[in-house]
Amino acid sequence: MKKQFAVFGLGRFGGSLVKEFHELGIEVLAIDKSEEKVQQYAAYATHAVRANAIDETILKQLGVRNVDHAFVSFGDDIEASILTSLILKELGIPQVWAKAQNDYHQKVLDKIGVNRVIHPERDMAKRIAHHIISEKMIDYIELSREYSMVEVVATKKLCNKTLLDLDIRSKYGCNIVGIQRGEEIFVSPGAEEKITLGDVLLIIGKNKDIVDFEEYGM
Amino acid sequence: MKKQFAVFGLGRFGGSLVKEFHELGIEVLAIDKSEEKVQQYAAYATHAVRANAIDETILKQLGVRNVDHAFVSFGDDIEASILTSLILKELGIPQVWAKAQNDYHQKVLDKIGVNRVIHPERDMAKRIAHHIISEKMIDYIELSREYSMVEVVATKKLCNKTLLDLDIRSKYGCNIVGIQRGEEIFVSPGAEEKITLGDVLLIIGKNKDIVDFEEYGM
Amino acid sequence: MKKQFAVFGLGRFGGSLVKEFHELGIEVLAIDKSEEKVQQYAAYATHAVRANAIDETILKQLGVRNVDHAFVSFGDDIEASILTSLILKELGIPQVWAKAQNDYHQKVLDKIGVNRVIHPERDMAKRIAHHIISEKMIDYIELSREYSMVEVVATKKLCNKTLLDLDIRSKYGCNIVGIQRGEEIFVSPGAEEKITLGDVLLIIGKNKDIVDFEEYGM
Amino acid sequence: MKKQFAVFGLGRFGGSLVKEFHELGIEVLAIDKSEEKVQQYAAYATHAVRANAIDETILKQLGVRNVDHAFVSFGDDIEASILTSLILKELGIPQVWAKAQNDYHQKVLDKIGVNRVIHPERDMAKRIAHHIISEKMIDYIELSREYSMVEVVATKKLCNKTLLDLDIRSKYGCNIVGIQRGEEIFVSPGAEEKITLGDVLLIIGKNKDIVDFEEYGM
Amino acid sequence: MKKQFAVFGLGRFGGSLVKEFHELGIEVLAIDKSEEKVQQYAAYATHAVRANAIDETILKQLGVRNVDHAFVSFGDDIEASILTSLILKELGIPQVWAKAQNDYHQKVLDKIGVNRVIHPERDMAKRIAHHIISEKMIDYIELSREYSMVEVVATKKLCNKTLLDLDIRSKYGCNIVGIQRGEEIFVSPGAEEKITLGDVLLIIGKNKDIVDFEEYGM
Amino acid sequence: MKKQFAVFGLGRFGGSLVKEFHELGIEVLAIDKSEEKVQQYAAYATHAVRANAIDETILKQLGVRNVDHAFVSFGDDIEASILTSLILKELGIPQVWAKAQNDYHQKVLDKIGVNRVIHPERDMAKRIAHHIISEKMIDYIELSREYSMVEVVATKKLCNKTLLDLDIRSKYGCNIVGIQRGEEIFVSPGAEEKITLGDVLLIIGKNKDIVDFEEYGM
Amino acid sequence: MKKQFAVFGLGRFGGSLVKEFHELGIEVLAIDKSEEKVQQYAAYATHAVRANAIDETILKQLGVRNVDHAFVSFGDDIEASILTSLILKELGIPQVWAKAQNDYHQKVLDKIGVNRVIHPERDMAKRIAHHIISEKMIDYIELSREYSMVEVVATKKLCNKTLLDLDIRSKYGCNIVGIQRGEEIFVSPGAEEKITLGDVLLIIGKNKDIVDFEEYGM
Amino acid sequence: MKKQFAVFGLGRFGGSLVKEFHELGIEVLAIDKSEEKVQQYAAYATHAVRANAIDETILKQLGVRNVDHAFVSFGDDIEASILTSLILKELGIPQVWAKAQNDYHQKVLDKIGVNRVIHPERDMAKRIAHHIISEKMIDYIELSREYSMVEVVATKKLCNKTLLDLDIRSKYGCNIVGIQRGEEIFVSPGAEEKITLGDVLLIIGKNKDIVDFEEYGM
Repeated sequence: MKKQFAVFGLGRFGGSLVKEFHELGIEVLAIDKSEEKVQQYAAYATHAVRANAIDETILKQLGVRNVDHAFVSFGDDIEASILTSLILKELGIPQVWAKAQNDYHQKVLDKIGVNRVIHPERDMAKRIAHHIISEKMIDYIELSREYSMVEVVATKKLCNKTLLDLDIRSKYGCNIVGIQRGEEIFVSPGAEEKITLGDVLLIIGKNKDIVDFEEYGM
Repeated sequence: MKKQFAVFGLGRFGGSLVKEFHELGIEVLAIDKSEEKVQQYAAYATHAVRANAIDETILKQLGVRNVDHAFVSFGDDIEASILTSLILKELGIPQVWAKAQNDYHQKVLDKIGVNRVIHPERDMAKRIAHHIISEKMIDYIELSREYSMVEVVATKKLCNKTLLDLDIRSKYGCNIVGIQRGEEIFVSPGAEEKITLGDVLLIIGKNKDIVDFEEYGM
Repeated sequence: MKKQFAVFGLGRFGGSLVKEFHELGIEVLAIDKSEEKVQQYAAYATHAVRANAIDETILKQLGVRNVDHAFVSFGDDIEASILTSLILKELGIPQVWAKAQNDYHQKVLDKIGVNRVIHPERDMAKRIAHHIISEKMIDYIELSREYSMVEVVATKKLCNKTLLDLDIRSKYGCNIVGIQRGEEIFVSPGAEEKITLGDVLLIIGKNKDIVDFEEYGM
Repeated sequence: MKKQFAVFGLGRFGGSLVKEFHELGIEVLAIDKSEEKVQQYAAYATHAVRANAIDETILKQLGVRNVDHAFVSFGDDIEASILTSLILKELGIPQVWAKAQNDYHQKVLDKIGVNRVIHPERDMAKRIAHHIISEKMIDYIELSREYSMVEVVATKKLCNKTLLDLDIRSKYGCNIVGIQRGEEIFVSPGAEEKITLGDVLLIIGKNKDIVDFEEYGM
Repeated sequence: MKKQFAVFGLGRFGGSLVKEFHELGIEVLAIDKSEEKVQQYAAYATHAVRANAIDETILKQLGVRNVDHAFVSFGDDIEASILTSLILKELGIPQVWAKAQNDYHQKVLDKIGVNRVIHPERDMAKRIAHHIISEKMIDYIELSREYSMVEVVATKKLCNKTLLDLDIRSKYGCNIVGIQRGEEIFVSPGAEEKITLGDVLLIIGKNKDIVDFEEYGM
Repeated sequence: MKKQFAVFGLGRFGGSLVKEFHELGIEVLAIDKSEEKVQQYAAYATHAVRANAIDETILKQLGVRNVDHAFVSFGDDIEASILTSLILKELGIPQVWAKAQNDYHQKVLDKIGVNRVIHPERDMAKRIAHHIISEKMIDYIELSREYSMVEVVATKKLCNKTLLDLDIRSKYGCNIVGIQRGEEIFVSPGAEEKITLGDVLLIIGKNKDIVDFEEYGM
Repeated sequence: MKKQFAVFGLGRFGGSLVKEFHELGIEVLAIDKSEEKVQQYAAYATHAVRANAIDETILKQLGVRNVDHAFVSFGDDIEASILTSLILKELGIPQVWAKAQNDYHQKVLDKIGVNRVIHPERDMAKRIAHHIISEKMIDYIELSREYSMVEVVATKKLCNKTLLDLDIRSKYGCNIVGIQRGEEIFVSPGAEEKITLGDVLLIIGKNKDIVDFEEYGM
Repeated sequence: MKKQFAVFGLGRFGGSLVKEFHELGIEVLAIDKSEEKVQQYAAYATHAVRANAIDETILKQLGVRNVDHAFVSFGDDIEASILTSLILKELGIPQVWAKAQNDYHQKVLDKIGVNRVIHPERDMAKRIAHHIISEKMIDYIELSREYSMVEVVATKKLCNKTLLDLDIRSKYGCNIVGIQRGEEIFVSPGAEEKITLGDVLLIIGKNKDIVDFEEYGM
């Protein structure tokens, strides 16, 4: 059976969630106090309803009980966020995720049983700050506290050299697990593979080794 | 010479940026209209100044001309965001990045020469929506419109099987470029490598192939 | 060692608490966001401080850690009530009592570990509603769901009759455990005791028996 | 004939009154200026009406003249409280009770003939402050300035002792007029009655004697 | 000993009172909540003080106890008007006069012992309405419900006629008790007195007789 | 033909005017921006209309052109008062009277041709200030800058004395032109008329003579 | 084919534009957020529509695509001005003119491709300031930075003199290209033309020469 | 002696006036209620003062009596505009010019003796509307209701033709009184003068003749 999703609060984060679910072909119930917001996202949601999410009776009437996964993302209204999350947990929704404004808000959400607390601005700030320090880095995945997988643009210095020439593994302890060249991806490239201008390297390694390679090897 | 960073607007996004830079040991100038916000982030910034960012004269006095990279992240004040970004570009700041509230805001920022426009809530919503549809996926990097690199939890179905047994490449067109086991990472694992419970797989492949593998292979 | 009390929020309820403690000779710390309120209750509190109770750092500076029993009674500000209660519990205050605005508020307070949740208006409404239905009743204690101890004014019908004459116990199942006559109290009055005009009877019995006696016996 | 009750102002106190009357099976007319409040309490009132209570003409149309007992409990609106109370007295309502915000408000209500002035937060603060100083006390009735009837939890020190052993009357001048054991109540217990763990004692005595007994005898 | 006057509330009515007292050489204490108002009337009052008139303590400090006659004229703030009037009566001020906004306000002021309630707009409207219906009337004093003393401009029709000719008394039942001619006044003019153009007649009579005379005799 | 009256602005002054006209049996058109005010005075006006008085087109539709005498009494809205008065004069209304807030307002009204400017609060303050200085004075008419006609209560000192005995005219230069005794009025009383307790004297004289008489003769 | 005009924002400037187009017989579409404004200008516009100009979808439905020339004149709402101008340019409107509040606003409008930025108050202030310095000047056209064509009132000093007598050209370097006498205009007047009282001269010349002539020659 | 100028109200129009006077080297006194505005224009004014312009006493202290020409340009505050203009006229300022919001406002300003009433937005809208209908017209002066002097760009059709060839006067009744070619101006050009590309023609004529010429002759 298909999972039922619901988004409470159609601000920028909640609204974007509804749009993303829509693009991924997932059905979603969208709820907001403001008629205007409901109109704005009606096209992307299976049902878009104007409702005061703090009212338990109305939530039951909307069939919120059948929702498998709810997102609570009220802008600055901490009270509404806490009370709605509480009601959703009381109604037995298996997964309730909520957006927090600050650390105390997060703690209260944790205490009332919210399954995951989200900080979009904080997390995005983190990604951008990491991105900024290395201009070559495009994106990254934190694998553990020590290891990362990063996507970096190859510098001119590397051009026309084979992986063998570069010998990155032994020099810096990093592994090039893929090379992206235009729309193509070469996975686990061979040692004789020659790097060309505009290549993007997919590297796995320890953070400090990757930093060393970016600084000295590129 | 060290790069100079400045953050205009200390809301949740701007404030988090300042904190992240602080943790990464990067110096940053923090500016906001509200004394309260300035106080809140004074400990994390090299300089935290209360100033009306729309006033060119004051910005020059603050030495904003020497900044290499500025972030403009005024909450809902689109006018302040546009005018401040304009002044920063006019002052010749090489990199001006700004947070946009909606598509029109983004277009205006593009027209006045903002170097990168950021949508924290939208981007985070995207990551979460992708995450949600596959409970096995932990994080991902979009390599191109077709290809991704994903980090997924291995299911029981895969346990105690070697990569050779699974033959994922020929069956699903995906490559396992790494296996994360506890704190260790096995890069470009060999065909005889056996998957154990709790392993996390690093896979590169076409989006549709990855989805097929997650749905049928795991 | 003396117990330390603190009252957060000096509205009608919090302010009255501070005054009552003062009359009972108990030392109390009084905290409110408004300078005006702090002034109003400064004479009744050991220390009266203007502080933003949601700020953990300031609370520590005030020595709130040493408080044994805190009362949180912010008027309509549910968010402040929840966050302050949370911080107080995190700081390890043994007893945190808080005033709730509604049932959801109460549930959140329960979840974050508040020791007792108070509803002054609701409880007083209850006492008054009970009082109203019997004009003879002055006050009452609910002993259990079935039993009460009530204080009722004797009617003319009872005047100049002895307890023996009235035989209330066998007729209505109620016990007269005391008679209040002016400033004097006769505890466990004898059967020959004669009721006089203006006497107040202290009765213990089942609720329905007391109601019967009030309706038919008086 | 049944008494007619009316509640003007459906805030927390007025609203709770309506609910209590409803639970006690008493009919009540509920009036508020706000449609939302009227809706909220419609289920508990015989009639719930949105009306501007300061308008005499409308009050007459609502049949307020036939009300026997009216409660005026407007939140912070002292003017509405005073003018509505005045109109109700002018209309000849026998009992008009009103909630006061402060001492001056009370005096004005007294002057215009309000039959009883209520201070829910102040009275509840009093009960709680009294309660707090003795952790054994559950509830109490003030019989006069000197005497009280209290409900206290028996301490371990008293367990397995008979009333005769304890000889509380001669030692402390207090009378135990009842013992509550689980759901049962023993009225005027005999001297041989043995106190067991968890017993609740119903005591009548002078305040200072009760305090002495609680401090030294228990 | 000189009488002490005080005016609470320096709106148009209260401010005008202060100015009039000043012109009449009478000392007056002027009190208002607004610093601006106090400044505006400082030149006309013996003392002009910014004070919250509802605060008894401050009023005592201002020496309000010694005032013989107080005027309370708060604009639309009925609550402040009632509470201040009450405090002034409680302080024992012999004469407290207050401006009322409407009939209920007046009744409350009566109940709390205000000595005279004033309705400037209503009274002035009355004078003007009376004035309007007879264009000849300049001013009037209501002697009783039936009798008035009026000041009317003589019409051309009366010019050059003696009082004897006109015989107003027997024809209309009105008495001409004075004639004002320029700056001079002829009191109880003789029957031979001739009316000249521009004369103003002072007439005492029954209202209906005066109206008849104005309509038919002039 | 009957005169047509119109009142613009139904505040306390305008509303009282409408009521007075109604009591005097005069037809009046009542106009206000607020529906509530229009309702409140609908019963007293021939027509009561909600209209924006600043809109010339609407005023013409209401037939305001036929009005003979208009009163403009907008509370604190000086702009509305000025613009409406102007339009009324432009429409050719013969008499436009307007209530002014201050001297500048008055001057502007004068400049645009308003026929009479009214200051209810100021005029009433004047009457009351005059009244206050002599407790015996009930009412007065200012005949000229020097002369007044006053209505004073006779003191005990005058009782049982004839006008001849008192010889007020020669002693103080004042003329008693009438004596009011209960509901009766004695006009131009004879010298032998004896004053009795409770009599009210109608006196014409120079201000300073009247003051002298009140102070020394009574 | 006729050109299509549209005015967004019906404040004083936008509204005046609509009225002027109406008087010139030009069809215009008028759009504002406020229903009241739309009503006010409905009579002057071909279509007057209440619409949120920032909403692209609605603009398309209104057929704004077919407009040849749009004016954006939102009062103080810089954000609305910028976003609406952007959408209009994105829709391909050939001419978009917008009113700017300040220099930064102007720069943003320039960047997004607005064809002409208008400053009504600034331009009118310029005309008036120029006008003021010479009381004889009625109007002027700036031909270049050096040259102007001005319209000045002839002084008495010039009266009854021929242009030959005055010899303005050789003395001051200015040319009189026309004389306006009442409703008539004499273009390129002959040297024998005699100036009469009230004539208005049309002069072309260098600014400094015109000033000299005005100061010394007139 | 130099003329003294003063500008009351430093909005866009008043502020621009101050700047223009500054550029023209004229001394000006700048007055506004807002400190911020005063700061903004302090550099352009001889004196910039924060003052409440409605207060006569303060105006006198500022030496406003010596001003020769005052501009009153309060934004939307019609009341302030009227009262300040009145006071300035009462103080005897020879020239008081004021900005009006609408026709009624203008009439009131006229009545109180304001010397000239200005409508910047309306006048600028007029100039722009006229400009728009003929794309060739750059600027114009309205000489009378019938005649104008206009500045138009010559079309290709006229190029290389002499004024004689064109014979505009006889064909269209318009006179070419000047030709502007680059920075040069040819006044009263001869018949043999040949028009070249980019020439701007200065034409005097009847409005309808100019329109005909623009439409058919160019």
